[in-house]
Amino acid sequence: MNREIAVFDSTLRDGAQGESVSFSVSDKLKIVEILDDLGVAYIEAGNPGSNPKDMEFFSRVSGLRLKNARLAAFGSTRRSGKTAAEDENVRSMLRAETPVAVIFGKGWDFHVTKVLKTTLEENLNMIRDTVAFFKKEGREVIFDAEHFFDGARANEEYAFQTLRAAAEGGADGLVLCDTNGGSYPFEIFELTKKAVGRFAVPIGIHCHNDDGMAVANSVMAVEAGASHIQGTLTGIGERCGNANLSSLIPTLQLKRSYSCIPGECLRRLTEAARLVAELANMPLPSSMPYVGLSAFAHKGGMHIDGVLKDTRTFEHVEPKSVGNERRFLMSEVSGRSTVLAKIRKICPDLDKESPEAKEIIDLLKDMEHKGYQYEGAEPSFELLVRRHLGKYKPFFDLEKSTIIEDLTSRNGGRSSLATIVVNVEGERRISAAEGDGPVNALDCALRRALETFYPELGRVHLTDYKVRVLNPEEATAARVRVWIESTDGTDVWTTVGVSTDILEASGRALTDAIEYKLLKTIERKFKPFI
Amino acid sequence: MNREIAVFDSTLRDGAQGESVSFSVSDKLKIVEILDDLGVAYIEAGNPGSNPKDMEFFSRVSGLRLKNARLAAFGSTRRSGKTAAEDENVRSMLRAETPVAVIFGKGWDFHVTKVLKTTLEENLNMIRDTVAFFKKEGREVIFDAEHFFDGARANEEYAFQTLRAAAEGGADGLVLCDTNGGSYPFEIFELTKKAVGRFAVPIGIHCHNDDGMAVANSVMAVEAGASHIQGTLTGIGERCGNANLSSLIPTLQLKRSYSCIPGECLRRLTEAARLVAELANMPLPSSMPYVGLSAFAHKGGMHIDGVLKDTRTFEHVEPKSVGNERRFLMSEVSGRSTVLAKIRKICPDLDKESPEAKEIIDLLKDMEHKGYQYEGAEPSFELLVRRHLGKYKPFFDLEKSTIIEDLTSRNGGRSSLATIVVNVEGERRISAAEGDGPVNALDCALRRALETFYPELGRVHLTDYKVRVLNPEEATAARVRVWIESTDGTDVWTTVGVSTDILEASGRALTDAIEYKLLKTIERKFKPFI
Repeated sequence: MNREIAVFDSTLRDGAQGESVSFSVSDKLKIVEILDDLGVAYIEAGNPGSNPKDMEFFSRVSGLRLKNARLAAFGSTRRSGKTAAEDENVRSMLRAETPVAVIFGKGWDFHVTKVLKTTLEENLNMIRDTVAFFKKEGREVIFDAEHFFDGARANEEYAFQTLRAAAEGGADGLVLCDTNGGSYPFEIFELTKKAVGRFAVPIGIHCHNDDGMAVANSVMAVEAGASHIQGTLTGIGERCGNANLSSLIPTLQLKRSYSCIPGECLRRLTEAARLVAELANMPLPSSMPYVGLSAFAHKGGMHIDGVLKDTRTFEHVEPKSVGNERRFLMSEVSGRSTVLAKIRKICPDLDKESPEAKEIIDLLKDMEHKGYQYEGAEPSFELLVRRHLGKYKPFFDLEKSTIIEDLTSRNGGRSSLATIVVNVEGERRISAAEGDGPVNALDCALRRALETFYPELGRVHLTDYKVRVLNPEEATAARVRVWIESTDGTDVWTTVGVSTDILEASGRALTDAIEYKLLKTIERKFKPFI
Repeated sequence: MNREIAVFDSTLRDGAQGESVSFSVSDKLKIVEILDDLGVAYIEAGNPGSNPKDMEFFSRVSGLRLKNARLAAFGSTRRSGKTAAEDENVRSMLRAETPVAVIFGKGWDFHVTKVLKTTLEENLNMIRDTVAFFKKEGREVIFDAEHFFDGARANEEYAFQTLRAAAEGGADGLVLCDTNGGSYPFEIFELTKKAVGRFAVPIGIHCHNDDGMAVANSVMAVEAGASHIQGTLTGIGERCGNANLSSLIPTLQLKRSYSCIPGECLRRLTEAARLVAELANMPLPSSMPYVGLSAFAHKGGMHIDGVLKDTRTFEHVEPKSVGNERRFLMSEVSGRSTVLAKIRKICPDLDKESPEAKEIIDLLKDMEHKGYQYEGAEPSFELLVRRHLGKYKPFFDLEKSTIIEDLTSRNGGRSSLATIVVNVEGERRISAAEGDGPVNALDCALRRALETFYPELGRVHLTDYKVRVLNPEEATAARVRVWIESTDGTDVWTTVGVSTDILEASGRALTDAIEYKLLKTIERKFKPFI
């Protein structure tokens, strides 16, 4: 089998309906690029009619040049009693100027009479008209039959009439939605098969996970002939979420040879899922299939023994095939070659069998155990390696760094005062600064003290600040990881710090950011490293 | 349909193989009681041969009087070349003195030759002998055919021979295991159907979730005639976990009328899952089907509108049927009616057309604009509304709150010192505390000062701490939103604080958490509010 399956990601629309999910416009633009790189066919980017913030995004996203994906806007059929051209929602969708329009209409008679409060006949007209309107405007039109499966259980004939109306309007695809997420694999299979048999256009599937079966239900639909799968890359979405594409794509592609995304992209799946989770601030459960941290982590002694003899004994697919890694939780034998590759990027001459290489691997494991993660924060890793090898002379010594915070004084909101003492080759500087919070005060004081020695720091400023609580169940005593992104106008670099103390973690990332800038400036001026 | 399905929970055995899961003996005893109360038929409590800590537990658990469940110990077949009676693992299992023995044996020829390094014939003898041995000792014996589905794909005849050997040994049940968690719903259905047709004893199913389909695969097995389902109540387990019983039980019971647990117990499902998650220190993802905090949480305006008209529009089952709750989330995509519904939950007498209602809606918009997000942090919203309506007298006045942080002093890592002055009805208390970071110090100092006035705060502790940077491009001057989750052992509540100063944001969420607890305690003691 090698049937092509079009992957349709709705992280930015249905995913944004998940509890606690809220994307900024810049988050959304980054997610579009990640999904496009991953090779999905469609990115559903928002509902311009219901969310004004989405309009700003649509105007900015048109500047991106996408390699694989087509952008889609989502909206409902026209209202009863208006023409499509008069309808405000329809017009908002048009203004979004996406090549693809996803029109959703009611597929369940109960919803038509109870929620829309219109007639069954008028609902069919609404579907047919709205689809036809967007076709006339030159859009690719996908029809989402909302509650199709609940609808078919109640009134199968009517549910199929709604599909027929969309097909008559010229829809390019008909998507069967399990909106309430409570359907059974068998039902999905049978009804999808009927739809595939009755219509010439591609049939799609859109499952929610309220009974924990969204992935399997989508698989059943594909087995019944569906050729378009809707979901979200990390499974986020209203209530219990949408079908998790990071489970669905490799399952279809590796197990049944369907073609969902380009083969070489599958190896980026884990990275893409983790980046999207980061932007959504919804950390992936470590047990998430294929892409979770524990997905290929072996803990039981018998399991580890088996995997050491042959990985197929306890792994359903090869971890690398989805860009993930095998881990042995009891005996840390993992990842050595990856780490060595990183170290040799910094010190190309280092022998991989040398004691130094071994020490750095141990050091790295120790730091990771403490919560450090150097992926995306390579400057901090480079500083770690250089410090360890003694090939690094710090540009300054931070003798003292104190923060005083008075939460009850509200003098213009600047309640934080940082004082810093630095020592540069025997010369000391004391500085103090107020700030919007303690980290800001610290940043200002530190750069104020150092600028007299290193005027090149005048161009450096911080452009991003992120905080992740690592073991939230420890509550306020939890370990936190802080990332700081900096720029000098030309280069951009990210550093990381970890501590149970958020100020200390921030201080470490800040210090690394400044050290790294100085290292790169001096290095360029005087000599290449090693 | 009303077929009885025996529920077999393996939280304490397979669940304990999940990454970061580790139970104390007292945790295990509590979990046995929770599962027994929930009405499961079997509790697999450990592997006495591989884990010496389990022996202590088995000797203590025999003191519990269980109402519904039978306890099971888990272990492998005898080794090749020994009799069952000589085998150390077998003897450990016997010493556990459980009424049920679960014997696992290899169902995949590849494992027999590659891992056990014995002959296919000897593996069959090992299965037959070991089962017969425990039957002779008077135990109920369940045979787990490890890797049955992978085995059947490779050598179907041999996989069935392993089942046959167990049946000949006298097994009371034969369980088909998808140990690597990579099987397909159709395969599971077909092979289970064959097994049901060939053996007179009950057939069970044990699925892992490596392809995200463990629940659906278990459902398929039941539809094919299996009458025994193995999993873990919250889905924890090796790698991606086991079939999640908190999804599987209500799906089978509510949708297909199978009888899994006593009807009245189903309403305790959410509570039981949350307690077990607490003991496992593995917080439930909020999107978990049926039992998650968001499982019946509605965010989109159209969804809320539909549910207000008829809950069936966007709910696949009634939340109460599994002991969960419907929630309407507040966000930019939800409408005025949601907010009004929330306000009226707090003040039932408030006229929705009154100036106060309008003021609160404006206030809410203003707070959201500042970065507050009350969805999931309703206690902070309730306090906001009460404060605004003047219907709230604070329980304490925070006169002074200062933090001193010395980032360069590393005295045992406790670099933060908080001092607090509170005033409760004219009486002042000063307290100070060190902490793992400034927020922890603040939390300790505040509760130390207040506990003399309000001893009920002694039971309160924080269980989750989350930080979201709202405008990361402002870097260290960015606005941050802090969520704090608290519990007093019975209730769980979440509060929110926002500021450019992370300490101030944390302080606000902390103060709200304490105020809310006091409000609820006093309210219960003296009078209903309004």
